[in-house]
Amino acid sequence: MNEFEIIKKYFDVCTASNNNSDVLLGIGDDCALLHIEPQYNMAVSTDTFLEGTHFFKGTEPKAIGYKSLAVNISDLAAMGATPVAFTLALTIPECNEDFLTKFAEGLFLLANKNHIQLIGGDTTRGPLSITITVFGKVEQGKEIRRSGAKDGDVVCVSGPLGGAAYAVALRYGNEKMPEDKNIIKKACSLLDYPNPRTDLIPWLHKFHASSALDISDGLLGDLNHILENSNCCACIDCDDIPVSSSLTLLSPEKQLNYAINGGDDYELCFTLPQHEFTSWHEKYLKGEAPEVYRIGTVKNNLNNDIKTFKSTDRKIINYNGRLLLQSSLMSPIFNNIKESFSHF
Amino acid sequence: MNEFEIIKKYFDVCTASNNNSDVLLGIGDDCALLHIEPQYNMAVSTDTFLEGTHFFKGTEPKAIGYKSLAVNISDLAAMGATPVAFTLALTIPECNEDFLTKFAEGLFLLANKNHIQLIGGDTTRGPLSITITVFGKVEQGKEIRRSGAKDGDVVCVSGPLGGAAYAVALRYGNEKMPEDKNIIKKACSLLDYPNPRTDLIPWLHKFHASSALDISDGLLGDLNHILENSNCCACIDCDDIPVSSSLTLLSPEKQLNYAINGGDDYELCFTLPQHEFTSWHEKYLKGEAPEVYRIGTVKNNLNNDIKTFKSTDRKIINYNGRLLLQSSLMSPIFNNIKESFSHF
Repeated sequence: MNEFEIIKKYFDVCTASNNNSDVLLGIGDDCALLHIEPQYNMAVSTDTFLEGTHFFKGTEPKAIGYKSLAVNISDLAAMGATPVAFTLALTIPECNEDFLTKFAEGLFLLANKNHIQLIGGDTTRGPLSITITVFGKVEQGKEIRRSGAKDGDVVCVSGPLGGAAYAVALRYGNEKMPEDKNIIKKACSLLDYPNPRTDLIPWLHKFHASSALDISDGLLGDLNHILENSNCCACIDCDDIPVSSSLTLLSPEKQLNYAINGGDDYELCFTLPQHEFTSWHEKYLKGEAPEVYRIGTVKNNLNNDIKTFKSTDRKIINYNGRLLLQSSLMSPIFNNIKESFSHF
Repeated sequence: MNEFEIIKKYFDVCTASNNNSDVLLGIGDDCALLHIEPQYNMAVSTDTFLEGTHFFKGTEPKAIGYKSLAVNISDLAAMGATPVAFTLALTIPECNEDFLTKFAEGLFLLANKNHIQLIGGDTTRGPLSITITVFGKVEQGKEIRRSGAKDGDVVCVSGPLGGAAYAVALRYGNEKMPEDKNIIKKACSLLDYPNPRTDLIPWLHKFHASSALDISDGLLGDLNHILENSNCCACIDCDDIPVSSSLTLLSPEKQLNYAINGGDDYELCFTLPQHEFTSWHEKYLKGEAPEVYRIGTVKNNLNNDIKTFKSTDRKIINYNGRLLLQSSLMSPIFNNIKESFSHF
């Protein structure tokens, strides 16, 4: 089967059933054509998904198709942009119809759910690799950048963390397999089928999120990008970080370690003005909004907090100069922080 | 060096000097942001460029950077879309600074020439592979699709063909190396540094090109895409097909074979209404427009032409049912036509 036949059989057909009204021309010409209404900007992001680096050799093809799109859609959600379309550059070692069928199944499962249309691509023979570029739209001036966090804003995450990293550790054999198979299944599902939080896009806009990003590399490293881009600091209470229920059999220290350092969760980390957080949380308590988790506060500097915390018996750590972590747990939790840090 | 450092050192810096006014936000956030004025549509294309498949192992890094962008810009030109921005997904086996320096040099040589801004990307460790997605803008309704060719239109190409395919044959050892080193140099330059014909975009619009595509897979196969999409046929006079000067030492049959079957030239093939072709050609003769090469005519069907040519001593071949090729040369020229064809 040549490139044209592969595209027609596995990708063009599925696309026809999922038209996005911003797409004027899809697969089949030199270029696809989009028209975004003038009140919107177009958001663009691209990610490569490589066997052995981004997923284990032997990952089920359906999960590869699903997740290669999920990680890209997650970037749109983090910008507050609604998915519109995507291109797919697929490199495969051989034309394996079983692989292509399941890959396309996973890909379009998520594409259809998000009304995002495949508008073009390229198939090549070579080591398995997927590069997807996504296009979304966001009202002019409403995009949520990494650079908008302000003193006093509440630092939030969108859901429990650490489950995907635990699944990675299980697959590497770095953690003992739990006897309860449901725990393994849940953790692996978090790793293989992450849910990009497009459901939060309207809520992030409604409550005027001042900054956001998706947690792909781990909470601490990713939050640090917000702080660097916003030129501010943050004080995080580690006891408030929500931890995936798949970690319940582990020690509290290990749980926290996976939650703050583990990547691949694709939850969002974002900042909200204090009163907006309060409104969102109240709406959540009434069952009218999704849950939002407060984990700390944005600060212009950490001088006062360092003084305050020094007088308590809480454990504190200065992570990278911008991030003050406090916890009721003792120091082992911080042993695995990958980047440089210093104790006071 | 990690991903962020690579991007900053080799790609972000070069980008800063080349801002496109349609780019609101470039590298550094979850997404880039574009704003295209409402009278334009956005054209999108993506291509993967893989070592061993799209370029020879050992190709100079500068050429890899240049050509991986050139093939994508060529798709924009074929749609009549002006380049705006691109994303780069770069997979490299190791962080080789010499490679990255030269790769970036070739990439930005062409990017700067075309005022196209790098707005995002992803670097990964793995087998050398480059996927670029390009964004261009074209006035609403003015895009040049493959489907607009009409009976009586003139079939044109934008320049001499066959040089790149000859260079491929030289590198594979399928052709004897000519003694004149300048010929080798010229052919290899056509292969490694193709010139995407963005210079033709205003002329294609001015003379109302009814269809266009870029010749990446060979004239016959690519022209066939226009004919299939436009549901029409064409009669091509092979004697009129311009042949690269790097082929002059080869037999006329070989020259024609490279010109009609060889890919990688990245010239454009397009159709023009008869009177528009005449105007363009007149302007060319006065030195006021670039050269345009007439190679044949679009037909609703080939019945009349087959009758006419049967009464002459010209060699004719029906290629794929849509394409009638005539030539003063004898049959060997057609020996290497890759796709199915039938003689009358």
